[in-house]
Amino acid sequence: MAQQHLEPTDPTAGVVTGDALGGYLRAQATEFLRALRLHRETGAAAATEEAVDAARALRRSARRISGSLHTFRPLLDADWSEEMRPELAWLSGTLGLEHSYEARLERLLLALHRLSGSTVFPAQAVGPAGPAGNGRGVPPTAAPDRGNLTVGAAKAGALLDRQLTLARTRAHSTALQALGSSRFHAVADKVAVLASEVPLTPAAPTTDLRPQAAAAEERLMDAIAALPLITAGHPYNAEALIHGLSPDPSPHPQDGPWHQVRLLLRLHRYGREVLCGPAAPVDVRLLAAGQALNRHRDASEAAAAAAQAARTPRIAPATAYALGVLHADQRHEVEAARFAFQQSWQKQAVSAP
Amino acid sequence: MAQQHLEPTDPTAGVVTGDALGGYLRAQATEFLRALRLHRETGAAAATEEAVDAARALRRSARRISGSLHTFRPLLDADWSEEMRPELAWLSGTLGLEHSYEARLERLLLALHRLSGSTVFPAQAVGPAGPAGNGRGVPPTAAPDRGNLTVGAAKAGALLDRQLTLARTRAHSTALQALGSSRFHAVADKVAVLASEVPLTPAAPTTDLRPQAAAAEERLMDAIAALPLITAGHPYNAEALIHGLSPDPSPHPQDGPWHQVRLLLRLHRYGREVLCGPAAPVDVRLLAAGQALNRHRDASEAAAAAAQAARTPRIAPATAYALGVLHADQRHEVEAARFAFQQSWQKQAVSAP
Repeated sequence: MAQQHLEPTDPTAGVVTGDALGGYLRAQATEFLRALRLHRETGAAAATEEAVDAARALRRSARRISGSLHTFRPLLDADWSEEMRPELAWLSGTLGLEHSYEARLERLLLALHRLSGSTVFPAQAVGPAGPAGNGRGVPPTAAPDRGNLTVGAAKAGALLDRQLTLARTRAHSTALQALGSSRFHAVADKVAVLASEVPLTPAAPTTDLRPQAAAAEERLMDAIAALPLITAGHPYNAEALIHGLSPDPSPHPQDGPWHQVRLLLRLHRYGREVLCGPAAPVDVRLLAAGQALNRHRDASEAAAAAAQAARTPRIAPATAYALGVLHADQRHEVEAARFAFQQSWQKQAVSAP
Repeated sequence: MAQQHLEPTDPTAGVVTGDALGGYLRAQATEFLRALRLHRETGAAAATEEAVDAARALRRSARRISGSLHTFRPLLDADWSEEMRPELAWLSGTLGLEHSYEARLERLLLALHRLSGSTVFPAQAVGPAGPAGNGRGVPPTAAPDRGNLTVGAAKAGALLDRQLTLARTRAHSTALQALGSSRFHAVADKVAVLASEVPLTPAAPTTDLRPQAAAAEERLMDAIAALPLITAGHPYNAEALIHGLSPDPSPHPQDGPWHQVRLLLRLHRYGREVLCGPAAPVDVRLLAAGQALNRHRDASEAAAAAAQAARTPRIAPATAYALGVLHADQRHEVEAARFAFQQSWQKQAVSAP
C-alpha cells in the first residue's frame, strides 16, 4: 500500500490501511528494543550522556506506540491495547521525570542569571551529569564580570538547586527501580512480541486508517478552537500572570487547555507519521506549534517550582523576593509561548489550502 | 500672520513668526493665573477635586511656558528666559509630586488585585482624597468574592500604602509650603507680567519660528533613532526585566533614553502648538506615542517603588515574594509600553508623506 505525503483528511490521498499501522508499530517496537539494549550497555546508573540519549529514545518510541494504540484503537486487538497503553504511559512518565527536573532547574538558573543582568554564562549552566555528578547548577566561574548574583538571587538559586536536585535524584532512583522491576520486564516482553507481530484485528489490513487519523486531527482542532487565541494574539495581554498571587491552592488552571492541546498535537503528529511513513517531510508549522507548547509547559512548571520554593519555611525576604520575580518572569514566558503558538497557528491557517 | 496646520518642517507651510510665540505665551500665562486663582479659591489644603484640577492646570501651563522658552530661546530675552525656566521647572516638579505618588499607589494596588485574580475591583481603588482623606487604598468591599488577597499580597499592599501615602503627605506639605513661599510669589509675578508683555527680542516679531521648531523635532527624531526599537518591536523580548535582580544599586539605566524621548516628544508637541495655534487638530499618533511613554514612566517608577518596599527591614517572606511578583509585573508593563510606542511610531513613519 502506497504511503502518502498528503494530509490525512485530504480526500485525494490514496487509501492507507492497517498494514501501514503494522509497519509503523513494528518499527517503533524495534526502536524501543534498540534503545533498551543501548541503555543496558551504557549502564543506567552511570547517567552518562549515552544513557540519557538511550532513555530519551526509549520514551520517544513508547510515546509513539502508546499514541498509535490510542488513535487507531478500532484496528487493534482491544484487550491487548487496553493492557498495553497504561503500561507504556507509566514507563515514559517514570523515565521522563528525572530529565524534566533537570531541565526545570537549568531553566530557572539561567533565568536567575538573565534577571541579574549577567550577560556571560555558560551554555550549560547545568551539565548532563546525573545524581552521580556534583549536582551544582552554576559553577562559580559562570559569569565572571557582571554575573554576580544579588544575595537574594544567589540564595534563591541555591534553594531551587537543592530542591530540584533532590527531586531529580529521587526520580533517578525511581527510574532505576522501574527498569529493574517485573512490571517493566513484562512491558519489554510485549514490545519484543510487537516488533515481529502486531495484533491487528482481522479486518485491519484492508481497513482505511484515514478516518481515525482525521478524528485525531478533529479532536485537536476542537481543542484549539476552544483556546483563548484572540487574547493570546495580543502581545502583553497580562493574562498569564492573573492569579499569580491568587490564594487558590491549585495554581493556573488556565494552563490546562494548553497542556491538553500539546498532547493532542502530539497524537496528531504521530497519526501523520503512521500515514505518511518515515520519509514524510517535517511539517515545520506543526513543529513550531509543538515547540511553543513545550515551552509553555516548561515555563508553567518552572513558575510553579519557583512559587513552591517560596513556600519553604524560614527563607530570607531577599530570597522570597527573588523567587517572586522569577515566578512572574516564567509566567510571562508562559504568555510569550501562547503568543508564539498563536502566531505559528495563524500561519498554518493562512497557508493551508 | 496666518497660523498653519502643517508640520513645522513642511517647506510649503507659511512663515510663522515670533508674534505667534508672543500670543501663545500670553495665553499660557493667562491660563496659569486662572488656575492659580482657582487653586486659591478652592483652598489648597482641602485637597478637593477642584484643587487637584487647578494644580494640574497650573502644572500644565508652567510646562508649556517653560518648554516654549527652551525651544524658541533665540527669540526671547536671554536673561529673563534663563531666570524663568528653572523656576517653572521647580514649580511644576513640586506641584506634580503629590499626584505622582498617588497615581503610583493606585497603579500598584490595582496590579496587586489583578495578580490576585480579583476580577471585581472598584474603578477607583484609591479615591481622589488627599492626605485629609483616610488614605486607605482598597476598601474592604473591594472584591467580595474572589478578591481576597493572599496574606503576602495584602501585606505588600499595606506596606506600599503606608510608604507611598507618607511620601504623598510629605509632597503635599512641600507643595503647600512652596505655594506660600516668596519664591513662588516671584514666579507668579513674572507670569502676571508675561500675560500682558512677552519679552521678545527686537527682531522676534518678524523672525520665522519654524527653524527652532524643526530643531526641536530633529532632537526628538535623533533620540528616537537611538532607541532599541527593533528589539522593542519584538513582543516578549524580555529586555525590560534584565537587571531585575541586578546588584546594581541604580536600577534600570535602560529606561533613561525612553524618559528622555518622552520629554523631547512633549517639547515637540508644545512647539507644534505654538506654530499651529489652539485650533490645531490633535495629532493622534503623537498622542498615542506620548501616552505609551507616560505609561512607560509610570510603570518604571512603580516597579522601582515595589523593589524599594522589598528592602524594608523585617518584612515577611510572603510580603517580599508578592513585591517581587509585583516588581516583575511592572517591568513587563515597561516592556509592553515600549512595544506600544514602537507600534504607534511605526504607524507614523508609514503614514507620513
